[in-house]
Amino acid sequence: MNKVINIAIVGLGQIGIYLYNELIQKKKEIEIKTGKKIKIVAISAKNKKKKRAFKIDKQIFYSNPLKIFKKKNIDVLFECIGLSDGISKKIVETALKKKINVITPNKALIAKHGDNLAKLAELNKVNLEFEASVAGGIPILRTIKDSLATNKLKKVFGILNGTTNYILTEMENTNENFSKVLRKAQLLGYAEPGNPKLDLNGFDAFAKVRILSSIAFNSKISKSRCIMEGIENIELKDIKIANQLNLRIKLLGISQVIDNKLFESVHPCLVSKDSYIGNVSGVMNAVILEGKPIGGTILQGEGAGPGPTSSSLLSDLVFILRGRLGNPFGISYKKRKKIDTFNNNNYVNSLYLRFEVKDKPGVLSLITNRLAKYKISVKRIIQTPDKKNNRATIVIITHKTTELNSTKCLEIFKKSKFITKFPTLIRLYN
Amino acid sequence: MNKVINIAIVGLGQIGIYLYNELIQKKKEIEIKTGKKIKIVAISAKNKKKKRAFKIDKQIFYSNPLKIFKKKNIDVLFECIGLSDGISKKIVETALKKKINVITPNKALIAKHGDNLAKLAELNKVNLEFEASVAGGIPILRTIKDSLATNKLKKVFGILNGTTNYILTEMENTNENFSKVLRKAQLLGYAEPGNPKLDLNGFDAFAKVRILSSIAFNSKISKSRCIMEGIENIELKDIKIANQLNLRIKLLGISQVIDNKLFESVHPCLVSKDSYIGNVSGVMNAVILEGKPIGGTILQGEGAGPGPTSSSLLSDLVFILRGRLGNPFGISYKKRKKIDTFNNNNYVNSLYLRFEVKDKPGVLSLITNRLAKYKISVKRIIQTPDKKNNRATIVIITHKTTELNSTKCLEIFKKSKFITKFPTLIRLYN
Repeated sequence: MNKVINIAIVGLGQIGIYLYNELIQKKKEIEIKTGKKIKIVAISAKNKKKKRAFKIDKQIFYSNPLKIFKKKNIDVLFECIGLSDGISKKIVETALKKKINVITPNKALIAKHGDNLAKLAELNKVNLEFEASVAGGIPILRTIKDSLATNKLKKVFGILNGTTNYILTEMENTNENFSKVLRKAQLLGYAEPGNPKLDLNGFDAFAKVRILSSIAFNSKISKSRCIMEGIENIELKDIKIANQLNLRIKLLGISQVIDNKLFESVHPCLVSKDSYIGNVSGVMNAVILEGKPIGGTILQGEGAGPGPTSSSLLSDLVFILRGRLGNPFGISYKKRKKIDTFNNNNYVNSLYLRFEVKDKPGVLSLITNRLAKYKISVKRIIQTPDKKNNRATIVIITHKTTELNSTKCLEIFKKSKFITKFPTLIRLYN
Repeated sequence: MNKVINIAIVGLGQIGIYLYNELIQKKKEIEIKTGKKIKIVAISAKNKKKKRAFKIDKQIFYSNPLKIFKKKNIDVLFECIGLSDGISKKIVETALKKKINVITPNKALIAKHGDNLAKLAELNKVNLEFEASVAGGIPILRTIKDSLATNKLKKVFGILNGTTNYILTEMENTNENFSKVLRKAQLLGYAEPGNPKLDLNGFDAFAKVRILSSIAFNSKISKSRCIMEGIENIELKDIKIANQLNLRIKLLGISQVIDNKLFESVHPCLVSKDSYIGNVSGVMNAVILEGKPIGGTILQGEGAGPGPTSSSLLSDLVFILRGRLGNPFGISYKKRKKIDTFNNNNYVNSLYLRFEVKDKPGVLSLITNRLAKYKISVKRIIQTPDKKNNRATIVIITHKTTELNSTKCLEIFKKSKFITKFPTLIRLYN
């Protein structure tokens, strides 16, 4: 690599522009830490005239990002557009083929096309780095790839989405309902103003789980989806009841190997208020690793926002500038194996079930009989009457049961005339 | 580096022998992760016949570790003896001069001679790695050197000694006194049976603070010592009173830059029971980093024991086998600067002061007058009489004051006839 490193940035949204500014500010420091001078030689975004947080050098601006490749001698390209396909994919592929190192925070792209892109990077002997794609500023991928390289990991899980964690925390703290808190999150920039769906339905966290799994278990990125549930159905009522039970609701992403099969999930979990994970609040992210001989290890930090994201993007740059060629997923694409998918039906949990019922004799026995039929035994029942409306809320905490049993068991309540709403199910964290 | 990597291990105590076994067990995995085959070609310890947890190959055993160097072609040497000087220093120096990569968990050696050893490693273009020297299995050094390389850190602190954290946790949980719990810690292998002093008096944690500072602030290892206090003076009484105040006592190691000066300390701190750090219990270690743009970041894990230590030792090996030459302290010895030491006298804290007094009129006013004289204002007083013995315990929580004021103020109580014991001072964490 030459002594002056030529850098291109594609995408100048919130993250791209912050990165651009950091690269300019930290030129000197990067030189001290790596012995390399950097120079931004090309930037690209849709709109040259858009108002941005930092001033850009219009001399090196390209409206068409693919034109950037006319520039010779680009050493490192940052892809900050963020699409799972389309122009993001095209740019990364083109760069790797041209032997340009690529750094990206784009989890959607890596979770979908990471295997092929890694192969392309390895064949062209350049780096494809994506530390910022999972948990923002937390250096979780480098930690697994390098620092825990010889550990046998069995489980990686945590809070991987700051938006949903903020919403759940804020609902508990303010007693405001989901939609009101969502609007607040949008105003504060924690949730996308237009379409926050990918955060709320668990899709964003699931992409991160897929990336984590493949690095933690040295496997190809899985294509199956065990469980993906978001927080859209969590009501303030559930948060309050959880509170009474000394529990708290968290959206957890979980990746683990059970009986040599990969189980990946994202779903709301009830965790103890006294547990570590129960106390990770607001926009914080946290990842917990379980392995041997390391034991339980925790990494916590800010999971989103341009600052922490930029910290990870620059750490990837420093890694490359120090001449550290590495396989994108830790080990070579040739050695990464496919793991079978765990059968979702066999996933076992205690459950929180909330039934909204008409306050009539026999309703409770209807529910408990149905549970018994599917061998779901009851640990605790809390019935709260709503006399005025002649209704009641029944919350049941069950002993452990399988997904298969709970799904089958709940099926009937879709059409029961005593039940006013399909039961809310939240799994207790084991 | 050749395809087969020759390894030597010097020191076969608890850690050395565990490492030896791990290297044999994980040969295949290390080859997959690094493309290199490893071979243990020399081991050394004082006693060939000592009973060890794992069987050793006596064909490659050396009673005199320096004889190891007669063996040609050693690529990586693990120093696991653990002395700050003497044979440990001699072996590491000799290895580096012979262009052998060195890996060590030896914090005493690095905290004392790290600057010179790093220079030696850099001049000879080999690696000197010591991830395991701070916080056992937690990859804190690599995280700061690489993953947070472009952040401006202002503070690094945490629980850096598992022995003392175990003792404090156990005293609270069992209501047993210091010496009883210490004996338990010794039986469980958490504290050294012979001389646990270096853990208890803060020396062990202070060596880790020195290493952390030099990496976090790109500075030479400091020679000054701001504050080093251990937990030997913490009584069960203090733990109980803290409990009433919703506080908990933790031995914290703190490294921070205040007004461009380095402040390094190890001392017991009162932290909120609701805080993150207040809930890191038992033998766990935790390190908290504060910086820009990363924000607050936490790493938690097992801080000691052969398993976690070995995890870090092997991560250093994988790093070297992947061909990653790096400066031992992140940046070159030529660029690391000296930082002035912060004047201890100006360190500011709220204080917990426990006075054991004769229950006579005027004692409280004597104390409060004395505090007022040194401008130490009182936030809270808890007086508990011990009628039977005509004595009392007075606990005062003060507003913030300087070390200078508190030291001068407390001086008089050495010779006061109303005070039965020199006051116990514990700083509240800011």
